[in-house]
Amino acid sequence: MAIDIAEIKRLRELTGVGMTDAKKALDDANGDFDEALAEMRKKGMTKAEKRGEREARAGVIGSYNHDNRIGVLVEINCETDFVARNEIFTNLVKDMTMQVAAGAPLYVSADNVPASDRDAATAEFTEKVKGEGKPENMIPQIVEGMLKKHFAEKCLMEQPFIKNPDQTVGDYVKEHIAKLGENIVVRRFSRMALGEVE
Amino acid sequence: MAIDIAEIKRLRELTGVGMTDAKKALDDANGDFDEALAEMRKKGMTKAEKRGEREARAGVIGSYNHDNRIGVLVEINCETDFVARNEIFTNLVKDMTMQVAAGAPLYVSADNVPASDRDAATAEFTEKVKGEGKPENMIPQIVEGMLKKHFAEKCLMEQPFIKNPDQTVGDYVKEHIAKLGENIVVRRFSRMALGEVE
Repeated sequence: MAIDIAEIKRLRELTGVGMTDAKKALDDANGDFDEALAEMRKKGMTKAEKRGEREARAGVIGSYNHDNRIGVLVEINCETDFVARNEIFTNLVKDMTMQVAAGAPLYVSADNVPASDRDAATAEFTEKVKGEGKPENMIPQIVEGMLKKHFAEKCLMEQPFIKNPDQTVGDYVKEHIAKLGENIVVRRFSRMALGEVE
Repeated sequence: MAIDIAEIKRLRELTGVGMTDAKKALDDANGDFDEALAEMRKKGMTKAEKRGEREARAGVIGSYNHDNRIGVLVEINCETDFVARNEIFTNLVKDMTMQVAAGAPLYVSADNVPASDRDAATAEFTEKVKGEGKPENMIPQIVEGMLKKHFAEKCLMEQPFIKNPDQTVGDYVKEHIAKLGENIVVRRFSRMALGEVE
């Protein structure tokens, strides 16, 4: 049967095998991409086993400009150019630029908060709580709660998704990983508002 | 004579006087904006005297996206919304986004190079020159020359303007300050290329 060359290339990108092996796997699976991939994984022919560990190198730089007053750039990576061009993926990129514009996050996720920012926030909240005359032994717990709330608001992945506030942005991205069958990583973003103090 | 309300507002924004004074100045100058402004300056009615010292708070966040692979944001400030909406100004913003996309600068100007970056480059060039066996006493001068060249390439304002390489970007911006009669500041930019190592 005739196998779509694009499918062969995608399978090759995903598994790291040669064109011939990728074509054979698709032939054996009668052109069913998912079955071909599953078979290759079973036989240990793929170089990366877990989706979350596979490198996301392809992708899109998305941008959004609101009325010449707010600008946003986002880099979202996936594993293949095929997914990068997929409409579901490009819609995700668009949603992420809008989210960054509206939610004004400072970090992608809690892992990306620099120690210096965490220390500064801890000092600020501790001073505030002390000023309110809270009992000394309760202060660490109260501060911990304030830090958690503060960074949840400032981390893109923990923000409520603007189009569906019942869901976090992180969960919305995970949905797309399942939907598209590739690892997807929101790598970084940049946001500028006119005249803001940095 | 009838004075354009937009002109009154602009004169007011530029000088910091009230609407009445701004209108009177324009009336006295028969509606000639530049003459009105010059007269007010002569009389010491303006709060800021030198164009370069006046605060640039209005402006535009410009953005540019090249093929979903390179994204650029630029903040360019001017003094009034009137200039921010002027086509000459918006074209300047567009040119700056293209310049940043093509020239990949790291800093706006030499003043913005952090000491740590300068130190790292100095150490790198010194090691390189020493490795080439240059005479010890010539090393500082050679390194100085290399630093100058390096940062000229990495500073937006010192780069050759892509549309006219005989001119630096800084000179091109200065031309617009003269043309538009307001201080213009390229405040910051952000550039993202897909998959680049930061």
